[in-house]
Amino acid sequence: MASWLPIPSKSHFSLANIPFGIISTSAEPTQRPAIAIGQHVLDLSAFAKNNGFSKLADFPADQLNVFSQTTLNDFAALGRPVHRATRAYLQDIFRQETPYPEILKDNESLRKQALIPIGDVQSHLPLSIGDYTDFFAGRNHAHTVGTLFRGAANALQPNYNHLPVAYHGRASSVVVSGTPLHRPWGQVLPNPQAKEPVFQPCARLDIELELGMFISKGNKLGAPVDVNNAEEYIFGYVLMNDWSARDIQQWDPWVVLADALEGFRGKGLENEVPPKKYLDEKREDPILDINLEVSITTAKGSKTKITQVSSQNLLWSWPQMIAHHSVSGCNLRTGDLLGSGTISGLEPGTQGSLLEQTMGGKQFVKLEGGEERKFIQDGDSITITGWSGTAEDGLVGFGECEGTIIAAVPRD
Amino acid sequence: MASWLPIPSKSHFSLANIPFGIISTSAEPTQRPAIAIGQHVLDLSAFAKNNGFSKLADFPADQLNVFSQTTLNDFAALGRPVHRATRAYLQDIFRQETPYPEILKDNESLRKQALIPIGDVQSHLPLSIGDYTDFFAGRNHAHTVGTLFRGAANALQPNYNHLPVAYHGRASSVVVSGTPLHRPWGQVLPNPQAKEPVFQPCARLDIELELGMFISKGNKLGAPVDVNNAEEYIFGYVLMNDWSARDIQQWDPWVVLADALEGFRGKGLENEVPPKKYLDEKREDPILDINLEVSITTAKGSKTKITQVSSQNLLWSWPQMIAHHSVSGCNLRTGDLLGSGTISGLEPGTQGSLLEQTMGGKQFVKLEGGEERKFIQDGDSITITGWSGTAEDGLVGFGECEGTIIAAVPRD
Repeated sequence: MASWLPIPSKSHFSLANIPFGIISTSAEPTQRPAIAIGQHVLDLSAFAKNNGFSKLADFPADQLNVFSQTTLNDFAALGRPVHRATRAYLQDIFRQETPYPEILKDNESLRKQALIPIGDVQSHLPLSIGDYTDFFAGRNHAHTVGTLFRGAANALQPNYNHLPVAYHGRASSVVVSGTPLHRPWGQVLPNPQAKEPVFQPCARLDIELELGMFISKGNKLGAPVDVNNAEEYIFGYVLMNDWSARDIQQWDPWVVLADALEGFRGKGLENEVPPKKYLDEKREDPILDINLEVSITTAKGSKTKITQVSSQNLLWSWPQMIAHHSVSGCNLRTGDLLGSGTISGLEPGTQGSLLEQTMGGKQFVKLEGGEERKFIQDGDSITITGWSGTAEDGLVGFGECEGTIIAAVPRD
Repeated sequence: MASWLPIPSKSHFSLANIPFGIISTSAEPTQRPAIAIGQHVLDLSAFAKNNGFSKLADFPADQLNVFSQTTLNDFAALGRPVHRATRAYLQDIFRQETPYPEILKDNESLRKQALIPIGDVQSHLPLSIGDYTDFFAGRNHAHTVGTLFRGAANALQPNYNHLPVAYHGRASSVVVSGTPLHRPWGQVLPNPQAKEPVFQPCARLDIELELGMFISKGNKLGAPVDVNNAEEYIFGYVLMNDWSARDIQQWDPWVVLADALEGFRGKGLENEVPPKKYLDEKREDPILDINLEVSITTAKGSKTKITQVSSQNLLWSWPQMIAHHSVSGCNLRTGDLLGSGTISGLEPGTQGSLLEQTMGGKQFVKLEGGEERKFIQDGDSITITGWSGTAEDGLVGFGECEGTIIAAVPRD
C-alpha cells in the first residue's frame, strides 16, 4: 500500500497500521484523538470538524464527537465494526490513489491544520482505565521463575494449565512512555533467615516485558463473554513494561487496533491439558505474533539489546483471558486494561525479565561498554519495542515504550 | 441535638450523623447528591440551587456545582475541612433552634421541593471508584482462617504484624445494597487429592463483614502520605459485604463522613511488633469503634442474627493503611475505595464470615426456625448493619447493606 504522504519504509506506523492515540500540542494544549502515520499524526478532532469523515458511511452520524474527547473511551465503546470501518477509511484517505482526494490529499488547508509532525506532539494515556488485570499467560516465564522459587518439579502451580491465572492491579499507577520513575521504598527481609524486615529502597528492581490489551465494549455483571465471540470485545494493543517491585505499568502511547494485527497470528505454546468448554477457542491461530525487543541504556550512554522474543510465547489467548475473566459473572468495562504477563522464551537473550536472565540474581547480564547488571540501577533507561510484518508490506509496530529509573526519594 | 424535623430516636441518621449519598426519584431520575436525615433525605441539588448554602461561609463559592454532579467525587475532592464545615452547617439548618430558620425550617416551598421521604428515593453508588484495595486488617479473622489452612503455629504470615497486607480488587464489581447476585461459576478441585478441576457453581459461597473507606483527596505518584496526616485523606465510611468466591463488593449507599465518627474510637488490637517509623501513628485511639451485626434471612423467611462484633477488632488503622499503600510511591485518587478486611472476634457469634463460624465448613450454624447453614444457599439474604453512639445523643449509623443470592445462571 503506497501513500501520497511520504512514509519511511521502516516506520512502525505504515499505512497497514493506523494506531490510535491521544495527543496535545503547544499550540493547542487540549488533549484529543489522533492516528500516527509515518512521521506525522493526523489530528482527528480537526479532521472530523472539517468534514474529514464525510465519506465514511459505516459510522454512526451522531457519534462524531468521539473525536473531540480527551480519551479514546467513547470511540472504543462504539465497537469493533466501527473501529474496522474507521481504520479502513483512513487507509483510503492516505492511499496513493485515494478515492477521496478532495478530503485531505488535495486539501492544503486541512493538511496544514490536521497533519502534524510526530515530533511536535505530546502523547498522553490513550484511555481512561477502569480496572487493570495482569494475567500470567507467558508459560516459559512462569516455569523459569517457578523453578527459581520452588524447584523444577513444582515450577508451575497446579492450576496453571487449566485456566489463565491473573492478578488485579491498580489503574492509578499506569503511566505513559517517557515518564521517569523514582526507585521505590518498601519493607523487605534482608536475608531469608531474617525475622525482622527493613525499610529501604528496592534493591532488585526489575522489568517485565508484556503486551497490554484494551477492552472496547464491556459485558454486564452476571453475563459472561463467549470465548469464540471475545475478539469483538478487543479494542487494541499496547507494549507494556510492568515495572516489578514497583507496581507501575508503563506503556507506549499508540494503541494498535485489533484489526491491524489480524494477519499476524499463530498457535502459541501448546497446552497438553484439554480446555474446559468455556475456554475452548475454535480458531487455529489464537496467539498474536509480534517481534518484541528490550534494550537497556545506561547512564554512561551505552545501549544493549537484552531481549528478543516473539509474543507466540504465550499459553493463553486474549479471548481466553476475556472468557475466563468474565466466567464468574465479573463485568468488564470499556477502557479496562488486561496485561499478558511477562513474555519470555527459554533460551538466553529471549527472556522478558532480568530475574530470569540472571537466574534469580546469581549471574550478570553483560552490557556494551563493559558494564553488567543483575537488576536495574539508577539512571538505567529501558526501551521496549515491537512490530509485526515486513518493510515491504508495511510494518505494524508499536513505536517505543521508554522509562528511566531515577534515585529513590530520600526518607528519614 | 434536637431537630425541628421529627427524627425517630432509633434512626441511624440522627442529627449527629449527616451521611452523604446519591439518589434519584421517579419524578426526577437524574442522580444527585443528598444527605439522609431521619426518615427523609435532603436533595442537595435542589437545596443548593435555592440558596440553601448561602449562609455557609467556609465553602468555595465557585464550587457549589459539586451538588449537581451524579457522584460525590467532586465534593469529596474538596477536602476534609470543607466536608466538616458542610456537615456542621447542615446540622445547624436542621437544629431545633436553627440560626437560619429562613433557609429551610420556615421555607415551606423549599421543604416541599428538597425534603423527600427516604422510602421514595432510589440509592446509587455514591462515588465513581478509581481503584479498590482490600486490606486484611482484622487479625482475629486472619488468625482463625490461617489456623484452618496452615495450623495454629503458622496461622499468621510472617509479614502480618509488620505491615498492613492488602489485595487489589476490581472497581467494576462493586454494587450497591439491594442488588441481587447470581451464584458464580468457577473451576474448583472436587477434593484435595484431585488432579482435574471441575467447572461448577460455587458451593462454598461466603460473606465477609467489612468496613469500606473512600479517599477524599489523592496523592501524587512518588509522594507518600504521612501516617499522622493521613486522616485528611479520608472522606468517609460505608458498610461492606465482600462476597467471597465472587469477587463482588456490596455496600450500603450512605457514606458516613469521617468527622461524624470522630468521637467513636479506641485502641483496637494490640500489636507486639513496634511499627516502622512510616507506620508509627501517634494518636492513642487510632481504631474506629462501631457496633456491627450480620443477619441471614432465608427463603423461608426466618431471620437470624449470626454476628455481633465491634470494629475494634482491627490491627491496622485507616491512616496506617493509607501510609502503607502510598509508601512505595503509589498514588491514591479521589474515590478510591479501601476495604478493612473481614472483621471478626474470636468467640462464637462474633465472626464476620461463615468460614470461621463453621470451622471451615465442619459444623453448622443454627438458624431460627430449625434451619442450618455451612455456606450461603440460593435465596438467602444477608443484611449487615452498623452504628455508633446512643439513641439519647443520636445514633451515627450506616443503615443496612442487603444482598440476596439467586441461583447460578444455567450453563451447558
